[in-house]
Amino acid sequence: INSKLPNVGTNIFSHIGKMANKHKAVNLSQGFPNFSLDPQLLQLVEKAIKTGHYQYAPMQGIFSLREIISEKTENLYGKSYNPESEITITAGATQVIFTAISAFVQQGDEVIVLKPAYDCYEPTIELFGGTVVPVQLNGPEFKVDWKEFESAINSDTKMVIINTPHNPSGTIWSREDMLRLQDILKGTHIILLSDEVYEHIVFDGKFHQSVSKFPDLASRSIICSSFGKTFHVTGWKIGYCVAPKVLMEEFQKVHQFNVFCINHPIQKALATYLQTPRHYLHLSSFYQEKRDYFLEAIRESRFRLTPSSGTYFQLLDYSEITNETDTDFAERLVKEHKLASIPVSVFNLNNQDNKQLRFCFAKTNDTLDRAAEILNRI
Amino acid sequence: INSKLPNVGTNIFSHIGKMANKHKAVNLSQGFPNFSLDPQLLQLVEKAIKTGHYQYAPMQGIFSLREIISEKTENLYGKSYNPESEITITAGATQVIFTAISAFVQQGDEVIVLKPAYDCYEPTIELFGGTVVPVQLNGPEFKVDWKEFESAINSDTKMVIINTPHNPSGTIWSREDMLRLQDILKGTHIILLSDEVYEHIVFDGKFHQSVSKFPDLASRSIICSSFGKTFHVTGWKIGYCVAPKVLMEEFQKVHQFNVFCINHPIQKALATYLQTPRHYLHLSSFYQEKRDYFLEAIRESRFRLTPSSGTYFQLLDYSEITNETDTDFAERLVKEHKLASIPVSVFNLNNQDNKQLRFCFAKTNDTLDRAAEILNRI
Ligand SMILES: CSCCC(=O)C(=O)O
Ligand SMILES: CSCCC(=O)C(=O)O
Repeated sequence: INSKLPNVGTNIFSHIGKMANKHKAVNLSQGFPNFSLDPQLLQLVEKAIKTGHYQYAPMQGIFSLREIISEKTENLYGKSYNPESEITITAGATQVIFTAISAFVQQGDEVIVLKPAYDCYEPTIELFGGTVVPVQLNGPEFKVDWKEFESAINSDTKMVIINTPHNPSGTIWSREDMLRLQDILKGTHIILLSDEVYEHIVFDGKFHQSVSKFPDLASRSIICSSFGKTFHVTGWKIGYCVAPKVLMEEFQKVHQFNVFCINHPIQKALATYLQTPRHYLHLSSFYQEKRDYFLEAIRESRFRLTPSSGTYFQLLDYSEITNETDTDFAERLVKEHKLASIPVSVFNLNNQDNKQLRFCFAKTNDTLDRAAEILNRI
Repeated sequence: INSKLPNVGTNIFSHIGKMANKHKAVNLSQGFPNFSLDPQLLQLVEKAIKTGHYQYAPMQGIFSLREIISEKTENLYGKSYNPESEITITAGATQVIFTAISAFVQQGDEVIVLKPAYDCYEPTIELFGGTVVPVQLNGPEFKVDWKEFESAINSDTKMVIINTPHNPSGTIWSREDMLRLQDILKGTHIILLSDEVYEHIVFDGKFHQSVSKFPDLASRSIICSSFGKTFHVTGWKIGYCVAPKVLMEEFQKVHQFNVFCINHPIQKALATYLQTPRHYLHLSSFYQEKRDYFLEAIRESRFRLTPSSGTYFQLLDYSEITNETDTDFAERLVKEHKLASIPVSVFNLNNQDNKQLRFCFAKTNDTLDRAAEILNRI
């Protein structure tokens, strides 16, 4: 067998997750909530499961769900996508990323990826013969160096991938960042893939800057979102993307042959549930409380941090505690201390080790207490 | 936009399905049942939805489901796949096909496809830079010409895709076919992608010949199956594949970045439901009755046919009725006669028009009656 991805192994989430189970560790590694969803959504799904919708949904997703997503983006970001031709329901946001890269990236194309980056972008780009052009995010705020970004662009640049709120760092982009990006891309044919799966989790009174707010960016963008992350059901595997018709047509050409369509009853339930905007609008304050609870609980620890501004992740710097690599330290934390986290080097350029671990605070206060108790005595 | 799939439009199922809805036609086009699933499976899913399993499943699928699939293939085909490393649960069989082609086919590779063929194979091969090498199936039995097949193989042949029971024709492969294929592939490095989604729908006392029964074939094969087709729930979007570890490793490298994992509660329910083999073993007789009911009802029509031996599809030859192309005739049938079917040319080599339409008989007897009534008066 001639592997197309010789350097790819099992992803970090499966690896640490397995270890966490084996050692019965408090698990703050893979990003998922350990509390239940809204009973009302559960009821809607039960009802949809029971009352039909057993067969294929339309390839793009059911119309009523696409319609309510269109309203949502109009209300939140001032941009309404045409539910007929500009919205697709997907098997999670990962599938959007894979399919979008499939549809556009070919041999010889360059794709700019800001590092650290979520782990699925790069192998997918390589699978389609593209070249990853990494650009480093800098400082505790993980800022783009726009000079460096601009000089990474050339006539082979097919796509740029951005992600705000940012996994793993929990930083968010400002309006100025977006305007700067818009300026730089103006006049080019570069496609923007915008990973906005944490769009509803932004703290401290700040706002999510969706690329859909910026007309010239929106005109070149595929934007993905995740119902799993927004409604505490990562295991249902449902998300969506929006894009202008010309891009969405190419996306759907591939989508139809990748998964054809998505779980039908869950779409039906979400179409009703989304009619109440509070269901997603309260999420920022919900997770801000979680963040604050967690940070308060580890105030006395020897870990250093810049508070997360969005997502349900918090980076902790352990450089004052040990010199171990983050992978070694993360694994030792699981084995000896029964606490699981993600070593940030897996997301970093050249896997650079900055002595940081990522903790997911989408957990019950009880779990956060148990994690804090461990962190405080290390 | 520089399309990677310039010749691909919306698939035939979406196209005809939309027309069927618009004209309120009796819909025997896209392959899906219009009756309900087993209430017991429904209850198991409801229970699983209600009682947790909200978050990510393991990337390969939950262990108990992989385990019961391993037992099933052992019992039915004498081959047990290792649930740890040789089975993956997927978002339907389409996702297996896309992911398998992704994982193995690259620029310059040739892939042999037997025509007529289901519509997702070829665009996916082209998306990855592969070349489709079509080999025609012949006669009313859609037999392989093994001489022609053998001469289509060369050192660039990376993969062969086969499909039995066969969509759209409803024919099945014999043991002799499999032995012949095994003989020809022996000693090569060719990967076999075996689409066996209708494995449990085989008629007239014949048996499904899974490639997993043939050791040398099995050692080079990725085999896909579909819970949607087996349990009347195409809209749940869940299937699986089995393959030897060396192939499955490469498959999972891509799978993890395509969809990561699959709807968790449905996996849970299926793991319990599959413990009763009768749930899938009765399917052949169930659909044989449907086929016989349908064929009896159209006995007086002017359509000619060779009875289907498997799948839930029946081809009908209309050459004695009209000279129209199958696409024109299929569209006219929807508009004027309110009956939807699939023109077989979309599956054929060079879209050759053999004056055949494909009808799905996975329908209530009432629906079959209404379809027959129309077919009898044409
Ligand atoms: C798809 S598994 C990873 C979940 C996640 O988003 C994360 O932990 O970063
Ligand atoms: C994935 S939609 C097509 C369903 C099907 O298998 C068919 O009708 O051939």
